[in-house]
Parts: sequence; C-alpha cells; structure tokens
Amino acid sequence: MLSILQAQEIIQSEFEKYYIADQPSELYDPINYILSLGGKRIRPALVLLANDMFGGDIDNAIKPAMGVELFHNFTLLHDDIMDKALLRRGNATVHTKWNDNVAILSGDAMFIKAYQLMVQCNPSILSRVLEIFNTTSLGVCEGQQYDMNFETRDDVTIDEYMKMIEYKTSILLAACLQIGAVIAGASLSNADLMYEFGKNMGIAFQLQDDYLDIFGNEANFGKEIGKDILSNKKTFLLLKALELAKGETKLQLEQWINAKSFNTNEKIKAITHIHKSLGIDKMTIDASNQYFSQALEALKKVNLDENKKEQLRLFLKSIQERNN
Amino acid sequence: MLSILQAQEIIQSEFEKYYIADQPSELYDPINYILSLGGKRIRPALVLLANDMFGGDIDNAIKPAMGVELFHNFTLLHDDIMDKALLRRGNATVHTKWNDNVAILSGDAMFIKAYQLMVQCNPSILSRVLEIFNTTSLGVCEGQQYDMNFETRDDVTIDEYMKMIEYKTSILLAACLQIGAVIAGASLSNADLMYEFGKNMGIAFQLQDDYLDIFGNEANFGKEIGKDILSNKKTFLLLKALELAKGETKLQLEQWINAKSFNTNEKIKAITHIHKSLGIDKMTIDASNQYFSQALEALKKVNLDENKKEQLRLFLKSIQERNN
Repeated sequence: MLSILQAQEIIQSEFEKYYIADQPSELYDPINYILSLGGKRIRPALVLLANDMFGGDIDNAIKPAMGVELFHNFTLLHDDIMDKALLRRGNATVHTKWNDNVAILSGDAMFIKAYQLMVQCNPSILSRVLEIFNTTSLGVCEGQQYDMNFETRDDVTIDEYMKMIEYKTSILLAACLQIGAVIAGASLSNADLMYEFGKNMGIAFQLQDDYLDIFGNEANFGKEIGKDILSNKKTFLLLKALELAKGETKLQLEQWINAKSFNTNEKIKAITHIHKSLGIDKMTIDASNQYFSQALEALKKVNLDENKKEQLRLFLKSIQERNN
Repeated sequence: MLSILQAQEIIQSEFEKYYIADQPSELYDPINYILSLGGKRIRPALVLLANDMFGGDIDNAIKPAMGVELFHNFTLLHDDIMDKALLRRGNATVHTKWNDNVAILSGDAMFIKAYQLMVQCNPSILSRVLEIFNTTSLGVCEGQQYDMNFETRDDVTIDEYMKMIEYKTSILLAACLQIGAVIAGASLSNADLMYEFGKNMGIAFQLQDDYLDIFGNEANFGKEIGKDILSNKKTFLLLKALELAKGETKLQLEQWINAKSFNTNEKIKAITHIHKSLGIDKMTIDASNQYFSQALEALKKVNLDENKKEQLRLFLKSIQERNN
C-alpha cells in the first residue's frame, strides 16, 4: 500500500513536470510562483491514498488530485488578498509581489486550471466527482466568509466556530478522501465513510492548531507562539474562555482583549494563565481527541480489509501525535 | 423555431425562479443583486437557440445556459473590482455597494454556482461541454489580462487588439453556440462551425461598439458618446489612427492624447475629425462587416436545413443593423 510520504513525493514530482502556460505572464507567473513555494501536498496525497486503499489505478487519480491542490492554492491566493497577508510559506504573497488585480485574476485562472485537471477522470464517475468538488468548494467559500464575519462580531458561539472550521478547513480534506474512493470505484457508503473520516480528522487538526498556538513548543511548532492571543483571534480556546470565565477572571480577560497598548509577552502570559486556570488546555485536547476518535470510528466502519486501512491509520496517528 | 426574444424570455423567467442560498448573506446577497440588475441574457439565449436549431430538447440546455450567464456575471463582478468601476447597468457595482473582499469571494462562489449549473447536462456529453467551457473561461481571463496590460502600454498593435477582443468578448459568445449544439447532439464539424459563427459575430460586434462610441447617435446608442476618446482607450479606431496619421495630423493626435487638461467637447470633436480625415470611420465599419460576412459564411457551411438557420440569421442581421 502507498504511504502518505510516497503519495506526497509522487504529487510533488508531478507538479515539477506540470506546465501551465506562459502568456500573458501576469496571469500565469503567479500560479507557477505559488506552486513553487511548495507546501506539504497533503490534500492530493490523500486522494491518492484513498484511491490506493480501494485498489484504484493511480493513473486515474493523479490529475484530479492535482486539481484539488490547485484549488487549495487558489483559495490561499484569494484569502491572502482578503486578509492582507504579507507572507505565504515564508515568501511574499502574490498580491504583495504583484498587486491585487493580478492576484484576483490569476487566482481565477488557477481555479479554472483546477477544473481542467479535475475533469480528467473516468467519464463514468465524472458527474459524481464534480458534484462533490463543487459542493465542497462552495462550502470552503462559506467557511472563509464566516471566518471574516467573525473578526467584527463579538457574539460568536462555539457552535458557530465549529461550523466555520468544518467548512473552511476540514471538508476539503474530507472531499479528497471521498473523491479518491469514488475514482477507485468504492461503494457509496464506503466513500461517504471516507468523507466522515476526513471531516473529523480536519476538525481535530484545527483544534490542535488552536492549542499549539498557545501551548506548543516554539521550536517544534515552527510558528511564533501566541500569535492568536495577540490578534484576539476567536479560536476554540478564546471562545471557551469567554464562555467559562466569571468574576475577576472575566474582567481580566476582557481587559486584555480590549487593551490598545500592552507588553506582548505579558499579554501572552496572562491569557495563557487564564486558559490554564479554567482548564481550557485540557478541554481543547479532549475535544480534539474526540474528533480523532470519531475519525477512527468512521474508518472502522469502512467495509474493507483492515490491513488496507493501515496507511490511513498511520497518517492519522502521526497527525494526532504531532507537536508542530 | 425558437426566436432570440423567446429564448431571452425563457432564461429570464428561469432566473426569476432561481434560488441561490441565503447564508452567509455577505456571500450570496451580491450574487442575487448582480443577477437582479438584469442584462440582455444574450449568452444563455444563444445556447438555447443553437440547441433548438439542432433539434435538442430545451430541458437539457436550460441549466448549462444559465451556467454560462452566471459565469459571465462573475467575470463582470471581478472585472469591476479590477477596473475600479462605480456603476454596472446603472447601479452601484458590488465592490462599491459592499467592499472588495465581498466582491472577490462572492465572485468566486458565483463561479462555482456556474459550474454547478454547467454540470447538469447529459453525462454522455459532459466531458465535451466542460472542455469547451474551461478552455473558453481561461481564454476570457487571458483577454481581461491583455486588456489591463494595454492600459499601460503604448506599443499595442492592431493584431494584438484583435486577439484581445476575440478572447475577452467573442469566444464566450462562440462557446455558447457550440455548447448548445453539442447538447443537442450536433456533429463535431457543425458544432465547430457554430463556434466560428459566434466568434466572428463577437468580433464584429465589438468593432461596431468601438465605432458607435464615436459615431453613434447618443440617443440611440444609450451611452455617452466619446467616452473612449476621453479615456484614450486603445480601441480599433485609435490604434488605426496612430498607425496611419502622419505629419501634422500625427502631432495633433499625440497632443490630444497627452493633454492633461482639456475641454472635453473640443477633444471629442478634434479626434473625431482626425478619424474622419483618415477614413477610419469607414475602415472600422468595413472591418466589422467583414467579420459579419465570415460569420454568415460559417453558418452557410453548417450542414442543416436552411430554414433551421433562420432565427440565428435574423439575430445576426439585428445586430448588424443596430445603432445602439
């Protein structure tokens, strides 16, 4: 069976051979640029993994897998404009390196290129694959919209937050596994279970990310610790703290959130302390683990030899055990 | 046979019944808004007309036809951001009424909705329809990029301009006719001839538009006369004038183009005079008519009873005779 690492390598080498077009250069250079910045290629690798699990021929899955990766990068390109992000994978974002117009239009072109790859699957399952892909893509846009709305709202509930991360992050991972299964000819119920697996894994992953931003080891996590705290980002932890804090703790929390000027280390330390005192670190890990368990449950229900599920189980384990 | 007017009415009534979604409202309200601003629905009507010509069932063509219209409106939405346009069909553009981020993301969602409609055609021709649609969409993006590039270039040739309008405007009209034919089960060569018809008609239409901006009757044309002149827009007429003008005329032309402050009526009058003195009004009409003839030639070659081509011929005639 194909391992996730092997699948990532296959996808990477396919992208090295992938030629988009060269004229007009303002349209195509940014696409080549963002693809050259790398990334882990997890989504397309999951398409290949699922396809392999159900005995599919890899040649039928590679193009749609690359399509999903192009779609993902297209969303990053447009999200970076909306978020006014300066850096992507340690390099200048497209709208910074070129300008907003170039980023809008080359993003649109990238989305079309994603479809051009996506439609290169067996005609007998094309309708089904596109149905999944379209529903998922629209959901990802909805997730991004909710995320932007949350920035200016101060009544976001945990339920709303869970829905947002499900849409923005996890349904695309879910769809990758489902599409891979469909391409391999898996039954409807098996393909749906793969989606369930991916959805739960994605939510677990995002909760972990929220946790690691505060409680991760800076060297291992690879990102600056406490960035979410400094930007008052409405993560699972902050929303939970706002829900549970009472009296003096609540006042302190609100003071830190509303403070216009502050020492960054002090703010991180204070909020981390509040989270710990409320037991939110443990709650977040528990919530994340619950979704990991649900992912495993879905995988168990997949009607397939257990040994064929091994690579996906190993992948899930590696995610659950990550500290970065 | 279905007339273009009947086809437009059918599409319009389908759009009145079309429900997108309502939450998140920032994502879907702008889509409903731009669709409510109307427009002639020419593109989807051409899908229906071509489908009808080849004896196709209208029920198979309506959804893809609407998909093309959604795609067209999506391009307007994003183009308006890039062009910083304030008005669309006499109303505030989406990025003005909301903001750039809303316009970017709701545009993306609209593009996905276009695909969702597009894929609702017979699975046996789905690959072919999507191949045409994807190639065309990408071409439209290329056309928009060339158009933006031209704004800051002063060495644009007539050939480059012809390619730009072909991509930006005419290939989508061409694809509508081709897709309609494919849905009805037309032969490959007939469908290709329909594309040829549409492409030439689109180019002819755009050249007419360039002409009418200067030589149209203001009341009939429905737009302000001379807008292209005032913005130094590199139309067929200006590029031809720059190519042909010599000596004193050339100097005058360049002075008007480079003038930072001027009386608008005087500029319009002077450039119009230069165009007339160089015979550019007639040249533009001749060029446009040549493309109209090529469209008719393609239609003649379509292997079908002549009476079935009547509605499309009438439509072409109505375009050619328009003065607005």
